[in-house]
Amino acid sequence: MPARAIGRIPVTEVFPVIEDGQWPAKGTVGEPFPVRATVFREGHDAVAATAVLIAPDGTDHSWAPMRDIAKGLDRYEAWLCPDAPGLWGFRVEGWSDPYATWVHDATIKVDAGVDVELMLTEGARLLTRAADRDLPDDVVAVLRTAAAILADTTRDPADRLAAGLSEDVVRVLGDHPLRDMVSPSVAYPLQVDRRLAQTGAWYEMFPRSEGAYFDQMTGRWVSGTFRTAMERIDAIAAMGFDVLYLTPIHPIGTTNRKGRNNTLHAKPGDPGSPYGIGSEAGGHDAIHPELGTFEDFDAFVARARERGMEVALDIALQCSPDHPWVRDHPEWFTTRADGTIAFAENPPKKYQDIYPLNFDNDPEGIYVAIRDMLELWVSHGVTLFRVDNPHTKALVFWQRLLTEFREKHPEVVFLAEAFTRPAMMRTLGAVGFHQSYTYFAWRNTKWELSEYLTEVATQTSHMLRPAFWPTTHDILTPFMQQGGTAAFALRAVLAATGAPTYGIYSGYEFVENVARPGVEEQIDNEKYEFKPRDWSRANDAGLAMLLGTLNWIRRQHPALQQLHQLTIHPTSNDFVLAFSKRIEARFSPTGADDTVLVIVNLDPFLTHESTVYLDMEALGLDPAQPFRVHDELGNSDHQWSATPWVRLDPRVQVAHVMAVRSL
Amino acid sequence: MPARAIGRIPVTEVFPVIEDGQWPAKGTVGEPFPVRATVFREGHDAVAATAVLIAPDGTDHSWAPMRDIAKGLDRYEAWLCPDAPGLWGFRVEGWSDPYATWVHDATIKVDAGVDVELMLTEGARLLTRAADRDLPDDVVAVLRTAAAILADTTRDPADRLAAGLSEDVVRVLGDHPLRDMVSPSVAYPLQVDRRLAQTGAWYEMFPRSEGAYFDQMTGRWVSGTFRTAMERIDAIAAMGFDVLYLTPIHPIGTTNRKGRNNTLHAKPGDPGSPYGIGSEAGGHDAIHPELGTFEDFDAFVARARERGMEVALDIALQCSPDHPWVRDHPEWFTTRADGTIAFAENPPKKYQDIYPLNFDNDPEGIYVAIRDMLELWVSHGVTLFRVDNPHTKALVFWQRLLTEFREKHPEVVFLAEAFTRPAMMRTLGAVGFHQSYTYFAWRNTKWELSEYLTEVATQTSHMLRPAFWPTTHDILTPFMQQGGTAAFALRAVLAATGAPTYGIYSGYEFVENVARPGVEEQIDNEKYEFKPRDWSRANDAGLAMLLGTLNWIRRQHPALQQLHQLTIHPTSNDFVLAFSKRIEARFSPTGADDTVLVIVNLDPFLTHESTVYLDMEALGLDPAQPFRVHDELGNSDHQWSATPWVRLDPRVQVAHVMAVRSL
Repeated sequence: MPARAIGRIPVTEVFPVIEDGQWPAKGTVGEPFPVRATVFREGHDAVAATAVLIAPDGTDHSWAPMRDIAKGLDRYEAWLCPDAPGLWGFRVEGWSDPYATWVHDATIKVDAGVDVELMLTEGARLLTRAADRDLPDDVVAVLRTAAAILADTTRDPADRLAAGLSEDVVRVLGDHPLRDMVSPSVAYPLQVDRRLAQTGAWYEMFPRSEGAYFDQMTGRWVSGTFRTAMERIDAIAAMGFDVLYLTPIHPIGTTNRKGRNNTLHAKPGDPGSPYGIGSEAGGHDAIHPELGTFEDFDAFVARARERGMEVALDIALQCSPDHPWVRDHPEWFTTRADGTIAFAENPPKKYQDIYPLNFDNDPEGIYVAIRDMLELWVSHGVTLFRVDNPHTKALVFWQRLLTEFREKHPEVVFLAEAFTRPAMMRTLGAVGFHQSYTYFAWRNTKWELSEYLTEVATQTSHMLRPAFWPTTHDILTPFMQQGGTAAFALRAVLAATGAPTYGIYSGYEFVENVARPGVEEQIDNEKYEFKPRDWSRANDAGLAMLLGTLNWIRRQHPALQQLHQLTIHPTSNDFVLAFSKRIEARFSPTGADDTVLVIVNLDPFLTHESTVYLDMEALGLDPAQPFRVHDELGNSDHQWSATPWVRLDPRVQVAHVMAVRSL
Repeated sequence: MPARAIGRIPVTEVFPVIEDGQWPAKGTVGEPFPVRATVFREGHDAVAATAVLIAPDGTDHSWAPMRDIAKGLDRYEAWLCPDAPGLWGFRVEGWSDPYATWVHDATIKVDAGVDVELMLTEGARLLTRAADRDLPDDVVAVLRTAAAILADTTRDPADRLAAGLSEDVVRVLGDHPLRDMVSPSVAYPLQVDRRLAQTGAWYEMFPRSEGAYFDQMTGRWVSGTFRTAMERIDAIAAMGFDVLYLTPIHPIGTTNRKGRNNTLHAKPGDPGSPYGIGSEAGGHDAIHPELGTFEDFDAFVARARERGMEVALDIALQCSPDHPWVRDHPEWFTTRADGTIAFAENPPKKYQDIYPLNFDNDPEGIYVAIRDMLELWVSHGVTLFRVDNPHTKALVFWQRLLTEFREKHPEVVFLAEAFTRPAMMRTLGAVGFHQSYTYFAWRNTKWELSEYLTEVATQTSHMLRPAFWPTTHDILTPFMQQGGTAAFALRAVLAATGAPTYGIYSGYEFVENVARPGVEEQIDNEKYEFKPRDWSRANDAGLAMLLGTLNWIRRQHPALQQLHQLTIHPTSNDFVLAFSKRIEARFSPTGADDTVLVIVNLDPFLTHESTVYLDMEALGLDPAQPFRVHDELGNSDHQWSATPWVRLDPRVQVAHVMAVRSL
């Protein structure tokens, strides 16, 4: 264990680094991210730092000067932006800044009449040294001219000094700094994934519900199919969603099948939960016969693609007792002392429709089977997987699987559905999941949301890309049960603007908010029955329109498509949350600064008024000047100053989503 | 940059780790320190963790079970204790705990009548597996007996279960846990130094002042010598100090010598600052002729040793213009454009009595010269160096020097005198300084001290061993200038009990608190003149006695000799600070728990009363029971409960230093 030599200019506490740099931090194509480090030096001479982005081929891709972000604490930051997927890296270089040292000393000493000729001579030598590098001619010219004036003893000392401090000299030395004692940190890894890994609007549906109908003749339900579900694709695409996520599409077991509302015994005709996977018709690599064939599935995927959407498939790595693996590979499950296969259980409760896989019994066999199964779906056009309960499987499995898929199929995105403790959620992201469900559904108050938005944007963003879902087929929080249409509206605004990836479970349009008594999920849960909806009434509550508008706003505003640049703004009313997101011109695909200010009334029942105390610097604005806002939701324009006053009536408009422009 | 494979049972966020484990954390012989890690697993089975201490020879030295210290956050902690100097290491092992899993499931299921026979059978198998290991016979017997009862179908199920849950089984499986899927972290380094690196009472003196006198005949001062200064050793040792620290003892330059009170020009007879090192009589490897010879120095060191004290030498790596290095090695300094050697300066101010070394000009030559100079003093019995302004020299230099000295002279301790920004101070410790001066002198209020005591004990303790000095020859804060004797008394109590290393500058006994106008240091600073003191009056203010008592208390209480176990206790009065330190019996040299509760009136002027809200768990006490305290300062006994009330009159007693004992 030999100690690493410290640099001549020390660079310590580099961020973003996961587990000593042994696992890569997360980056996204086109997404600027912050690099921070503690950089300092001995004595009084000037120190500076550069952040360098390293391309997958090992060459330096780009660099940025770091600025001091915590006076007295020697903490520096710069933003870098990768432009392609792959295993990138970055490092921080500390260096001695002889020009800044000279500027500091010469300004004071010439002013005080101390060592005047000496300081001017040393300035001339310094700029000559700066010019003696391999630089563009115009840069060299600027430096040589200044050096000549500094050395010209016929001139006034103040004029000579001014030549060394000129804007031109500062500019060319900013672009081409004279760096002494350059001391690089080690290179830290950065796994860069494509944009959809970070940014996308997801729409969840049970394909069997679309086109399902109750046949009065037979007295039984007839399942929807991929062909009937295809009918919905145009409308979902028209709302502006990017990802169409299907709950599991595999054959469903019959042994101990659950009935409606999670009852222990299914009645005849009950379709069963699509999470009870596997029957004589096949397992995870098969399609439920009632949904159609692989040709139908391919047609569904193709239609979604034509409409600009990719298809995500739900992967639940568990088996019904009827799954082919139970017959062919009983060793993949846990056998009890009495010779039976262990059901899933949470003692003393048992889930007799599910056998969990035991990954420790035959890790290699199970790995290959699951990998090959996923490969099959990839070969049928699936580019995203929503993984059910990844936290009940060993992380060694995920790390291996996700490493292999990143290599072979870098376009494929895995979303972790782990609603569990923070360490597991962070680490699932750190070992390779592209994005993660979050605690967003349970963060409702201004304090909770302020903390949580800040956490996901700044504290865990290098490990975990957050997905915000106001509801899922399994989650209907008390807030959503009780808050009516306004709750659905305001939570949609928060989800769509608070994180670059958000998701909506179909039926959201209808404010489906009645819970099964005693649990935080919908009554008549779609998991256990067919649930066709009358889409002609989808905008009765205004929510289909709102979702479409939100997705349109997200596409207009690169600021909302990025994760890291988020600022909470204080308000005078605890029911009013204000936050902004911003991307600077140099990183924006539009080439212009983009700033969005979101102000939400968190109370679905009452009108609230508030003063907002804007952090003008975070908005890229001059604190003393008025500025323009355009409300993208309300379609109105206003001129504001640093402490605007707002009034939001939840029956009329739950939020402002303001495009901010300086005058 | 290949990713490190995650363990089967993940172990992440290990502490104490510095810079990805590339630099060792600090440990001290006989000092327990906390190891923490985030440990978790998939699913619902039980997880556990072990912290393992690795000896310098690479073998496992000892281990401790880790306990959950933050419910829901999967954060575990254990305390380990190295017992010899050297480069140790530690690791954390996560593991699956099949016994805990069985206890949880079996207790619930047998109680609920579910799978009763199955659970008892599985319990019998588990304990049989535990017994089938290489274990002491009595342990095996306990496990086999329990397994037999669990398997005995003639018995009542409740009795069979009870056998598997018995205290005996829990105890032997606690000592010999059945660990599945053991997943070790990497080994992280731990540099263990001897106790005096962490724990000691220092006394600073200017040897030339002891025995100096003004000769009326010549009208000039006569310097004290090592021989006259030796006269003070008995008294300092009698006060219980461990280290006698001498300001620099080398020849002092005459060119641009500073006069009394830092005046620019010395008057005839002014002795000059011992920090203006070097004259024709020699440099850092010489002794000022007025102090005596190497023989005299050796005699001084020997006397101190006889009295139980080691000698620390002040090392100031800078030169007067008269230093031999200026003549022999002008290349070790900075030459300006005009050919002159650069003075130390803080533009536009110049320090014309000092040339700083330029370590970049000839790093190897300077390194060897300084190393050899330090070796010389080590060969004359110096075992500690107080390094003046280490933050004005490059850290690469210190890292190399301290690494070499740790190898060749592991007993030698270096104290960093860096009063600068946090990053530099932490990093000087991290690259090898054994201990560091701190911000203690500037932390006066209850809030400041609560934060700072916690910071040095828990947040930076793996990087920096703190030394608390209420004053130095350069530091006399406004609080000390204004607070009279009580300020000197209460700051001595805080220093001596708040950190295992503290220091006193001679003259503290006399409440020398008059500042030179405009600066926070003493008027008639001993740096620039002789300052003999009338030690017959040393206890007039009671401070010599107090220092002796504090050192006696420190020796009685191992709790005060350790750094990490410190707890702040809330009080009802903002002028009353309460904190405790504690060492558990298993780590205590006395073999018994030792707990000390310190309660200080921070106001040197007024009597204050306060309720103290004791954290009884941190004191090792039952919250519901009364307990005994013995005031080691006031020599009184009391029976207290969890919320004692105190009254402290600064004219009588500034603090309680309570030995705590349960009844």
